[in-house]
Amino acid sequence: MGETGASWPGQEPVLLRRIRLLSVIEALREAGPTPLTVLATQTGLSRPIIQSLADELVEMGWLSALTPEELGASGRTVGRPARRFRFHAEAGLVAGLDIGAHAVTGLVTDLDGAVRGRARLSISPATAPAERLDLAHAALTEACAAAGTEPTRLWQLGVASTGVIDHDGRVMLSVALPGWTGVDIAGTFAAKVGCPVIVENDGRAAALAEQWRGMGRGVEDMVYVHAGLRTGTGIIVGGRMLRGHSGAAGEIGALPAAGWAEAPMHLLHFPGIEPDARPEQIAEFVFSRARAGDEGALAATQRYIRALSGGIAALVLTFDPELVVVGGGISRSADLFLGQLVAELERVCVRMPKVVASPLDAEWVALGAVRVALDAVQQRYFSATAPDPLARPGQIPV
Amino acid sequence: MGETGASWPGQEPVLLRRIRLLSVIEALREAGPTPLTVLATQTGLSRPIIQSLADELVEMGWLSALTPEELGASGRTVGRPARRFRFHAEAGLVAGLDIGAHAVTGLVTDLDGAVRGRARLSISPATAPAERLDLAHAALTEACAAAGTEPTRLWQLGVASTGVIDHDGRVMLSVALPGWTGVDIAGTFAAKVGCPVIVENDGRAAALAEQWRGMGRGVEDMVYVHAGLRTGTGIIVGGRMLRGHSGAAGEIGALPAAGWAEAPMHLLHFPGIEPDARPEQIAEFVFSRARAGDEGALAATQRYIRALSGGIAALVLTFDPELVVVGGGISRSADLFLGQLVAELERVCVRMPKVVASPLDAEWVALGAVRVALDAVQQRYFSATAPDPLARPGQIPV
Repeated sequence: MGETGASWPGQEPVLLRRIRLLSVIEALREAGPTPLTVLATQTGLSRPIIQSLADELVEMGWLSALTPEELGASGRTVGRPARRFRFHAEAGLVAGLDIGAHAVTGLVTDLDGAVRGRARLSISPATAPAERLDLAHAALTEACAAAGTEPTRLWQLGVASTGVIDHDGRVMLSVALPGWTGVDIAGTFAAKVGCPVIVENDGRAAALAEQWRGMGRGVEDMVYVHAGLRTGTGIIVGGRMLRGHSGAAGEIGALPAAGWAEAPMHLLHFPGIEPDARPEQIAEFVFSRARAGDEGALAATQRYIRALSGGIAALVLTFDPELVVVGGGISRSADLFLGQLVAELERVCVRMPKVVASPLDAEWVALGAVRVALDAVQQRYFSATAPDPLARPGQIPV
Repeated sequence: MGETGASWPGQEPVLLRRIRLLSVIEALREAGPTPLTVLATQTGLSRPIIQSLADELVEMGWLSALTPEELGASGRTVGRPARRFRFHAEAGLVAGLDIGAHAVTGLVTDLDGAVRGRARLSISPATAPAERLDLAHAALTEACAAAGTEPTRLWQLGVASTGVIDHDGRVMLSVALPGWTGVDIAGTFAAKVGCPVIVENDGRAAALAEQWRGMGRGVEDMVYVHAGLRTGTGIIVGGRMLRGHSGAAGEIGALPAAGWAEAPMHLLHFPGIEPDARPEQIAEFVFSRARAGDEGALAATQRYIRALSGGIAALVLTFDPELVVVGGGISRSADLFLGQLVAELERVCVRMPKVVASPLDAEWVALGAVRVALDAVQQRYFSATAPDPLARPGQIPV
């Protein structure tokens, strides 16, 4: 072969060391607190090397050794228990912020996504942009306080908003909120917090939550439809979010033939809807009447689903997904319409995907914004391709 | 650090050696014939290591040293010229086969995609499946003969066909050819040739040709529309072909609202079209009349483009591509309709991509099938993640 260990270029052992450090963190994040001997088996590394890697990671602040109390609760062996390590998820905190039409929601989580603080403030669709941004910051501050921190100490902020968002975190186009087009969300928050800010469309954020904690777990190809008064999408291709060349992917709702602009009219114009009702209240009202046997409400529901299914069929034919998830305000009434939606899709689709409703709650979009933040953190600290993965202790901005 | 070269697990130097061998091949395939000293600079490896890698690759059959004649033609130095090596692209041959409605086309190329043989046989859309497959094999055999080989000695066969093709190379659905649904294209050819067979939809194959040798070079996000009597698509997302969960992605033409089923009717029903005319002949006929000022032909062209633009707008809104390429039979008359298509898209699209016509020729789909074959060869022999990259000399099936 003509090669020995001595011919390695100088930087390769450093890179190798980092990859090994990363693999220890990855194994611990997957398996939870684990003794070193098990880690050695999992990673295929020798016990002394694992020991040295773990010690270095503890010193860097990325791992904690379990306390005697923690060990006592889990260990059942007689005598001195084996040392166990766990990923130090509370080394940093991130936040997700959902700036919606009717509410702003903030969630603060640790690096494993465990929620440490939350806040939700009501708001009107008519609220001016500057006030909406201020209220969003207030919700963020409140969620941080509940987590025992403040916005300036976060590692990363993810923001979700209605509208087409460009790669710089600016609203390229919004038809749902007055004056929202052109608002520089990323710039506004970058000036208020001490960390990087990423802004994502709310439909895509909800789809990320679905992929992370909902029906989309383990699904490579998913079409997520966020159906409310505006219908949004989040499309996962090969496990990754489709964003497009300028961030405007997934806007099939802008096509008149898709039927999505017209769809909510069938619900909005139902007699008895209060003018300031929220989308989910409107849908709930019509659906509950339909469930009670009101023929007008049943017909309105059917017209709504027929209109919605046009755009969904276009997405199914285009992406051939494994799974379609219906989320947004209407998904809790899925029992009422899922059958009809499947029938409408079966009429035109070449191959039928599974069609299910999202198990979402009111924090789904904010949770997706947390996922955006955690993905950025993952990329920055835990990826072998990052410029400086696993920054040394002094650089961990705790 | 606690680590020395001696602590490397046994297989890592072997993997490293392979990665280095692959990097030498990659550098040579990119740069063409190159002296070893230049290769050493490009790869960052020492001269003796490069020498040893090159010698091993020559022995394996992957590289050739340039002959004195070849050197004499290119070298200008006085005295003994520096040794130069080149990738041995003729180490293996692959073929691409386009099984169309009106013709079957075979192309045989070397590992760099240089065409060594070609054949084209005319056929009728009414031809029965068994005869169509036999004629396709005849075209393949003829193209192989022109390249001085035979189908059983190919390394890989790529086949392109109309219809929705599943992952096993079987026609899931075809509305263009009678009896074509259910035909096992991959199985049929696997029994006739001695190499792996991959089958791809013809629209996607044309898109691959576009990405390889057309307008799509260097484009990460592209929507390619293959417009003829049937309108197909090939969609590139992040540099990769969108195939979908079962291979049925890109079938938006099946949606009535997309307008693609209706579109060709505007051309087909134009007075004076001969019943057995080919799609490109029909389009050419109507377009030439339109160009000559025939108002009926102009109106038919406009109705055709309006119908086509519905589905293209849906794809642009969905994917936010950098580039839309119009290929297929009509692309040579792009001067006549590109302006109208852009105007139709501008009415509904959130962000406008560049819209251009393909420079395709009659072998475009077959060329895309070659690309499919070459990608498979790349994956099998030249990828570090292959089970056995760079099979040893005895295993090179020359």
